[in-house]
Amino acid sequence: MGDGRQPVDLIVMNVGELLTLDGPPGGRVGKAARDLSIIRGGAIACREGRIVAVGTEREVIGDHRAGRDAVVLDARGSTVSPGLVDPHTHAVFARTREDEFAMRIEGRSYEEIAEAGGGIRSSVRYVRAATEDELLNVGSATLDRMMAHGTTTAEVKSGYGLSLDAEIKTLKVIAELGESHAIDVVPTFLGAHEFPDEWRDDRDGYVSHVADQMIPAVTSRRLARFCDVFCEEGVFTVEQSRKVLEAGRARGLAPKIHADELHPSGGAELAAELGAASADHLVCVSERGIRALAAAGVPAVLLPGTTLSLGKTDFAPARTMIELGVPVALATDCNPGSSMTESMQIIISLASMMLRMTPAEAITAATVNAAVAVGAADEVGSIAPGKLCDLVIWEVDDHRAIPYHYGVNLARTVVKRGRVVVDRESDGGPDGR
Amino acid sequence: MGDGRQPVDLIVMNVGELLTLDGPPGGRVGKAARDLSIIRGGAIACREGRIVAVGTEREVIGDHRAGRDAVVLDARGSTVSPGLVDPHTHAVFARTREDEFAMRIEGRSYEEIAEAGGGIRSSVRYVRAATEDELLNVGSATLDRMMAHGTTTAEVKSGYGLSLDAEIKTLKVIAELGESHAIDVVPTFLGAHEFPDEWRDDRDGYVSHVADQMIPAVTSRRLARFCDVFCEEGVFTVEQSRKVLEAGRARGLAPKIHADELHPSGGAELAAELGAASADHLVCVSERGIRALAAAGVPAVLLPGTTLSLGKTDFAPARTMIELGVPVALATDCNPGSSMTESMQIIISLASMMLRMTPAEAITAATVNAAVAVGAADEVGSIAPGKLCDLVIWEVDDHRAIPYHYGVNLARTVVKRGRVVVDRESDGGPDGR
Repeated sequence: MGDGRQPVDLIVMNVGELLTLDGPPGGRVGKAARDLSIIRGGAIACREGRIVAVGTEREVIGDHRAGRDAVVLDARGSTVSPGLVDPHTHAVFARTREDEFAMRIEGRSYEEIAEAGGGIRSSVRYVRAATEDELLNVGSATLDRMMAHGTTTAEVKSGYGLSLDAEIKTLKVIAELGESHAIDVVPTFLGAHEFPDEWRDDRDGYVSHVADQMIPAVTSRRLARFCDVFCEEGVFTVEQSRKVLEAGRARGLAPKIHADELHPSGGAELAAELGAASADHLVCVSERGIRALAAAGVPAVLLPGTTLSLGKTDFAPARTMIELGVPVALATDCNPGSSMTESMQIIISLASMMLRMTPAEAITAATVNAAVAVGAADEVGSIAPGKLCDLVIWEVDDHRAIPYHYGVNLARTVVKRGRVVVDRESDGGPDGR
Repeated sequence: MGDGRQPVDLIVMNVGELLTLDGPPGGRVGKAARDLSIIRGGAIACREGRIVAVGTEREVIGDHRAGRDAVVLDARGSTVSPGLVDPHTHAVFARTREDEFAMRIEGRSYEEIAEAGGGIRSSVRYVRAATEDELLNVGSATLDRMMAHGTTTAEVKSGYGLSLDAEIKTLKVIAELGESHAIDVVPTFLGAHEFPDEWRDDRDGYVSHVADQMIPAVTSRRLARFCDVFCEEGVFTVEQSRKVLEAGRARGLAPKIHADELHPSGGAELAAELGAASADHLVCVSERGIRALAAAGVPAVLLPGTTLSLGKTDFAPARTMIELGVPVALATDCNPGSSMTESMQIIISLASMMLRMTPAEAITAATVNAAVAVGAADEVGSIAPGKLCDLVIWEVDDHRAIPYHYGVNLARTVVKRGRVVVDRESDGGPDGR
């Protein structure tokens, strides 16, 4: 066996189209992705969870051999991409809310639904009443389904607790999921998701409570990496949002913002001012806001599934953002109120169909740009030596089929940190031959 | 064993929510489905592929027992519906067309794509060149994926041949799929899908060729049940469409029409005049056309996935149709050019989100109303004694979650003619506990 080649744990061979998304630092993040840095006839070698070689099959096999107990995966000529990164989810909740979905379609107003006990306040009620184990069960099953659809890294937010105890409980569940689940979880504190009933008459008081009590409690327990806020008319003002995000940043939490979802509320401008890790939603962002994001290099995280689920047809202006140089990422927004999906694949389809992002742009937005939005581009989002070996082996042999062939699961094999975590038989279909 | 109860082949027990869609003849077809005729705590008994009893568990088990080698399925409190019926597909083709999908997003016009060899003519080129076995392989894999998502009956059209030989070849493949695949296939002749290149300068000549040569060749071989035509500006005029459909009807093929997809072209009015089995697409139908369909009792088959895939946001006016009394059905339009999906589930989601159909209306449209549109409501589309035992056991326990929880496969077990044909482990998720 001592043939001079390095032994490795995992080799992926016979890759028809290897989407590395590798490139000069930052070069792939802004503007449109002109290509995906594709290697044809490629292979990947991995040791101890990290990629050690990427190249043509001849290059990789020339220098590396399968070590003892190594796994060798035959991609059978199909497309291989980095594991998908979902940079905006609310995946820890207690109950789904299909009842409100139906009420909205029947024409009930938000106020009627709120009066019937619905809206985010119902999720808060359920999360406060739930045990950690109950939340863990729902969260774990949700991450399972994300992974089955190709996601290997997911950001997960708190924000259905809205009290010190319930936010800490949620973040502990998120941390436990990060330990126990194969998916890498990036935790975000979103105590400023909404004003809880008990603080409705003292909104500034709640903002101070978040800034002065909750954030120190979160950071002293090392339970979050980011601090997020729902900056929107009727929810947190720009001033209140700035106060929360600055308090978080003072304790080491990088800022993220739910910005300009329903109105142009100045959220994008605030994200630019603070150099936020990302500005998310942006359905109603102003052109000034877009230019500010571009100038500051703040990634936009777009959530077309939310627009669709709410029955709206005005989607975020992705093309303008790309043209003006904003790095665009995509996310599921997985949450029980406005976007009940775990699949980044349907989001990639919607991005091409409704946001008019090319397949290459949409895949860039769901991998390397999403990794930038969660501060993890050093580790994930592209296929390059030193990165985690997070991969999707697809049922298709042309990446353009990923957005095109919609509503079904095209991920055949998912590899996380060099380990096969999903290996599905095809459901059939023209690319599943 | 002789306890007086009838032995059966299959029992489904412990159904939390049994959507029978049973009701007075025709009563469920028109207007809005007010409910789904739900039995809570239900069970189903089946013998030799047909339902023999439906009711509460006490009623069904009181009269029926599992015979020798019977299968007993525990629905674990979840929702059970009729197998889904997909009443409009072009599921037999030779190649996918993701290249054109990407070109459209990059802003290329239809003409440019056609000049680059694309459009329906590329599918025609590939189908003419393909062997029956090649078409059978693609078609079979496509039906596999349909079935994995809950479809148990599918209409399949020819129409990528556009010559006598290639249309007969396609219909023979469709017939072979009907024989070999668990899904029941309803064959439709669509020789008038487009004008083939060799007849472009003699359109009326091609219409006569379809009417006088192709239709007799199809019916003498008993290869189709319906005759369809693409009635649209620039394709088949109302006069040409009438000629094709009347020729088909004279030989026993019931008419169907691709109507008013791109312009209000009089297709709905023609469907009403002919008493067609269905009028399909109808994105641009006039109010007069809708009223004509309602008066004639012609079902509308809506294809919201096609609108989405083409990047458009003007969807068919489903609410107006429902309000004016048109029976509304839903279909995937599964085809490589404008709607590459096999999943009726994403179509149900789009119907609720974009067509504003309630979950009950959308499920009605994907089962009993779809069965009406393919002339099969006596056999499928509802759960009642005498009907085929075609069922979906869902991962959810509230039917409203079927459109709500989108982009993932919620069908856990699929039963076709009393036989379990799909039995998936859940991918996880909040309803997959």
